[in-house]
Amino acid sequence: MIVVMRRGAEQAEIEHMAQRVESLGLKAHIIVGAEQTVIAAIGDKRPETKESLESGPGVASVMPILAPYKVASREVKPESTQVVVRDLKVGAGCLGVMAGPCSVESEEQLITTARAVKKAGATALRGGAFKPRTSPYAFQGMKEEGLKLLAAAREETGLAIVTEVMSPEDVELVAKYADVLQIGARNMQNYRLLEACGRVDRAVLLKRGPAATIDELLLAAEYILNEGNQNVMLCERGIRTFETHTRFTLPLATVPYLHQKTHLPVVIDPSHGTGHAYLIEDMCAASVAVGADGLIIEVHPKPEEAMSDGYQSLNLDQFAQTMTKCRKVADALGIEM
Amino acid sequence: MIVVMRRGAEQAEIEHMAQRVESLGLKAHIIVGAEQTVIAAIGDKRPETKESLESGPGVASVMPILAPYKVASREVKPESTQVVVRDLKVGAGCLGVMAGPCSVESEEQLITTARAVKKAGATALRGGAFKPRTSPYAFQGMKEEGLKLLAAAREETGLAIVTEVMSPEDVELVAKYADVLQIGARNMQNYRLLEACGRVDRAVLLKRGPAATIDELLLAAEYILNEGNQNVMLCERGIRTFETHTRFTLPLATVPYLHQKTHLPVVIDPSHGTGHAYLIEDMCAASVAVGADGLIIEVHPKPEEAMSDGYQSLNLDQFAQTMTKCRKVADALGIEM
Amino acid sequence: MIVVMRRGAEQAEIEHMAQRVESLGLKAHIIVGAEQTVIAAIGDKRPETKESLESGPGVASVMPILAPYKVASREVKPESTQVVVRDLKVGAGCLGVMAGPCSVESEEQLITTARAVKKAGATALRGGAFKPRTSPYAFQGMKEEGLKLLAAAREETGLAIVTEVMSPEDVELVAKYADVLQIGARNMQNYRLLEACGRVDRAVLLKRGPAATIDELLLAAEYILNEGNQNVMLCERGIRTFETHTRFTLPLATVPYLHQKTHLPVVIDPSHGTGHAYLIEDMCAASVAVGADGLIIEVHPKPEEAMSDGYQSLNLDQFAQTMTKCRKVADALGIEM
Amino acid sequence: MIVVMRRGAEQAEIEHMAQRVESLGLKAHIIVGAEQTVIAAIGDKRPETKESLESGPGVASVMPILAPYKVASREVKPESTQVVVRDLKVGAGCLGVMAGPCSVESEEQLITTARAVKKAGATALRGGAFKPRTSPYAFQGMKEEGLKLLAAAREETGLAIVTEVMSPEDVELVAKYADVLQIGARNMQNYRLLEACGRVDRAVLLKRGPAATIDELLLAAEYILNEGNQNVMLCERGIRTFETHTRFTLPLATVPYLHQKTHLPVVIDPSHGTGHAYLIEDMCAASVAVGADGLIIEVHPKPEEAMSDGYQSLNLDQFAQTMTKCRKVADALGIEM
Repeated sequence: MIVVMRRGAEQAEIEHMAQRVESLGLKAHIIVGAEQTVIAAIGDKRPETKESLESGPGVASVMPILAPYKVASREVKPESTQVVVRDLKVGAGCLGVMAGPCSVESEEQLITTARAVKKAGATALRGGAFKPRTSPYAFQGMKEEGLKLLAAAREETGLAIVTEVMSPEDVELVAKYADVLQIGARNMQNYRLLEACGRVDRAVLLKRGPAATIDELLLAAEYILNEGNQNVMLCERGIRTFETHTRFTLPLATVPYLHQKTHLPVVIDPSHGTGHAYLIEDMCAASVAVGADGLIIEVHPKPEEAMSDGYQSLNLDQFAQTMTKCRKVADALGIEM
Repeated sequence: MIVVMRRGAEQAEIEHMAQRVESLGLKAHIIVGAEQTVIAAIGDKRPETKESLESGPGVASVMPILAPYKVASREVKPESTQVVVRDLKVGAGCLGVMAGPCSVESEEQLITTARAVKKAGATALRGGAFKPRTSPYAFQGMKEEGLKLLAAAREETGLAIVTEVMSPEDVELVAKYADVLQIGARNMQNYRLLEACGRVDRAVLLKRGPAATIDELLLAAEYILNEGNQNVMLCERGIRTFETHTRFTLPLATVPYLHQKTHLPVVIDPSHGTGHAYLIEDMCAASVAVGADGLIIEVHPKPEEAMSDGYQSLNLDQFAQTMTKCRKVADALGIEM
Repeated sequence: MIVVMRRGAEQAEIEHMAQRVESLGLKAHIIVGAEQTVIAAIGDKRPETKESLESGPGVASVMPILAPYKVASREVKPESTQVVVRDLKVGAGCLGVMAGPCSVESEEQLITTARAVKKAGATALRGGAFKPRTSPYAFQGMKEEGLKLLAAAREETGLAIVTEVMSPEDVELVAKYADVLQIGARNMQNYRLLEACGRVDRAVLLKRGPAATIDELLLAAEYILNEGNQNVMLCERGIRTFETHTRFTLPLATVPYLHQKTHLPVVIDPSHGTGHAYLIEDMCAASVAVGADGLIIEVHPKPEEAMSDGYQSLNLDQFAQTMTKCRKVADALGIEM
Repeated sequence: MIVVMRRGAEQAEIEHMAQRVESLGLKAHIIVGAEQTVIAAIGDKRPETKESLESGPGVASVMPILAPYKVASREVKPESTQVVVRDLKVGAGCLGVMAGPCSVESEEQLITTARAVKKAGATALRGGAFKPRTSPYAFQGMKEEGLKLLAAAREETGLAIVTEVMSPEDVELVAKYADVLQIGARNMQNYRLLEACGRVDRAVLLKRGPAATIDELLLAAEYILNEGNQNVMLCERGIRTFETHTRFTLPLATVPYLHQKTHLPVVIDPSHGTGHAYLIEDMCAASVAVGADGLIIEVHPKPEEAMSDGYQSLNLDQFAQTMTKCRKVADALGIEM
């Protein structure tokens, strides 16, 4: 940590802060500059100490040197993590595709979709049974009934099941039916939920919140990892910016950035990331090219009649066409898909 | 709702969409423009229908006319809601001040703060016992022990107690000790938690998420209101923008905007909204001038030693000085404080 | 345009606004809804009228239907524009690569770079002679001396020259040496400069401002197009968001979105868009896959010694490797490069 | 400057970077940490060197310590600058109010407004003669004819004249008629314009660009100050964020932050900052309370008929009422207005 003193900070203030640093178990190096003095605080990382040092007398700012996350970092585990669930392989050179409807609506809707996405090359079926909805007046999902339909679709197709869990008390129930527990963007910092997902034997897909920094995403992942569950996939699904022509802004640079910082695989969600069906094919191809380890895509037999997210769902033909394009890029770049 | 058809949309597409609109129980008015046709869909609001209409053939976009929230709206309840808990009065011309440490750390820290903020004019004591922390390695709060200290401070000072609840299963416990349940920014869309807080007999302080739109904030409030709890305060604590010289960007225009849209009172949190102690006094005065119904301010006897948020905590003298300035503005504008 | 009246707007207000609409030469359709009345204003687009209508009595909001831009729109010109300058071809199925140093620094630096980027497959050389610098204390460019070096490099290599022009009075001078005039992000709404570039016989590369909406970008392009110059390329170089791990946030969805709205080609600048050399190769590949018509990339023989933008410049080997990867993707997708 | 080396950086890389630092005329202190090594580079500020250091071998990041601006800083000039033009006084305890129409439209419109704003307490008249418009199809201003009307209004009322200049070649003409040259948000980084305004004997009002950081704003001010003109006012007019219920997001914390960093006065523009007439009164009062040195407000006799910005213009009565409220706050806080 670097404690930057104000220009004109008094000697007593500088000494006080050096002592504060030492009292936190860190070693203080005072460096007197031409205009400002800085104190380098050397030692194990202690991000929480930053908070109090900043209010010390004469302090201009405190700059952390070390990343705040640990077990998710590539420094701790240099080799890439691959999450494998049935035929779904995500990470370490393999691109896994999870596809299906936003909400599970009926047996027919689900099984039709499941067959089609499997035929087109997906290895996991996504579908929401518990739906977090911005409005209390919107469709809230089929709940356990939906989970049963998902399990039945797995029975027939062999696809791994990805579905959202919204609350710690639902984790056990959802884990009974699902292969991958999805933690939605709204819940990225719902720490009790993260901890509960860290204690079950199911892979977890953790979505980035729309205002979360990458450090915050990785710290959220650590809440899961620290409970023992190492099968964590990170998912970029777009951030909130001033742009309105897309629902969110989908920053694909997240992928190579995360690949440098963490061993966890990175999945892209171009459905939420763009919010418009006609943008998804190209953004899927770009996601493959940028090195994403997985894709999660909303697909519906009749988007116009979908009970949620119809505007960003591909129909079955569009999805097949998207997969064809993605495979061309993957083949060209030597990515297993 | 206005369904805007693409330039060059075919007559069959227009008719199809008009029928879709009617099938949703709305009345369709087709308006043929010089360049584009629009279909006005008249009837009760159904925000969820927007999602499917947008994927209809020939549709360019769908524009909602009505606000998505209902019971929080001023149209439904024109008179302003005032939340009253012990001596704390928030809304309808009264400005309530909630002050105290970020985290409850010890009996002495808490009672010292409680006495000082009461003396300076606060009517509620804030303090975190369950702390949602970005990092799993940071101090997570004293939990029930902290709640007991808060209750003891109320016993001595008469201040109302405001404290955060992080999970549905904690609501009962926290409600046992607290007067106001705070829902933090990270949990603004934790719907199970919102519903649980809607079912207890405690006032609720709902913080805006840093990427939440105002509509999303009001819809979150409706999750609480719809369960029966009408004592809801909204809290603006800053949004995430590209600015880095403040921790968040605190948009005070939220106050007059919300006052027009909703009857619920609006509280400002300049501590999180700026992230720097030296900006808080001026932003408090501005909050009073803009018409805020309440202030929630972090105060610590020794910010430099605080276990969390020290850099944005006022010390006892700074808080007293801030209150003096706020009172001048309130008096000048006829606000009861 | 749709004029949305407030709930409870009086009949006289509604009639007044209908008359205002008619007085602007538009036809007014009054549609009485269950809760609110809207007035559809039909006729030629007049974006400027929106501004005054919104302050009318009883008006809640005014929603434009038509896009504000015209001659840039694909509706006006359905076939894609291809900009051709020497061997540089951008648009309509061709991907052009412009590469070179941020600043022209010396003859040797420039010619070394020019030879290397040509060999690797670029068809244009970029390099700044007039440098807009955030700080008045930073290197401001070699000015005309730099232009001469660029022209000399063209002489030897045949590469088209792309360089920035900062002010209307420099347009003639820069056009004397350059093939493509670059308008930087800071000047996207410098209308005098746009107009001046619209009057010369040189292609123009117009960069999106970091806070500009797509509509604003297209309206800026119209300032150029309306003066007669049709050889305009749009350039996405990233927007300002809360993210700090990249210099800007580079939203590749801009490409398919713009392809739907405009006939103008779209170039991606991953150097400014990410701000870190190690992210550029993957983002270039993704740009090709998403359908970009061009790439503009900062390349320097010794990035560590660059007088500007060293941290986001590829060295000569990295550039060659990037081109190899891009060509694989382009070949796989049938893009000419 | 702090050069942070990557974890595992080799000794040779560390030494290389230390030499690079020394070769830039700075003194290098190598500090070996538990996990990472940092090199503190001590000496005069050289922000431009940051750019090349970051691309050095083994470098993780480079963190500047010193602010990049100089002559605008309060460290260089501790006492606050007050800009005085006729009766307009801005800064150092005085709050100046500039009010008037967005565009000068006619003699009657202007003089009516001028009389009314003077009567209500404004000391300067704002009005646009050269209008930068997002759309080439919108009203572009009356140009010199408008300037003459402004001068005539000054003749009658004694109000100082504030008007925008868009291009370096117009500076002389505009300076002939105006007392204060306004540089619009779109031109904040139009360096030629900044320099031209720095060479005339007129006060300058420099507006913050909607994506500009505070450091960028202060560096833009230095382009003016360095040419000799010290009469510079900074203006916060809102930044671009994800919020859509206001036209921009107006962060009032800019005022106390800038007051700490710079001696230049800070003006707030609540008209552009909110974009809605009904939000302006409260935001003006808040601006006074937060310590702003000036206000610039759009006022029009008939906003509904304004040729630009009608939706954010106060009518004459609303302006008088706003001034009354502001004066109450100013009086309560001992601010001269």
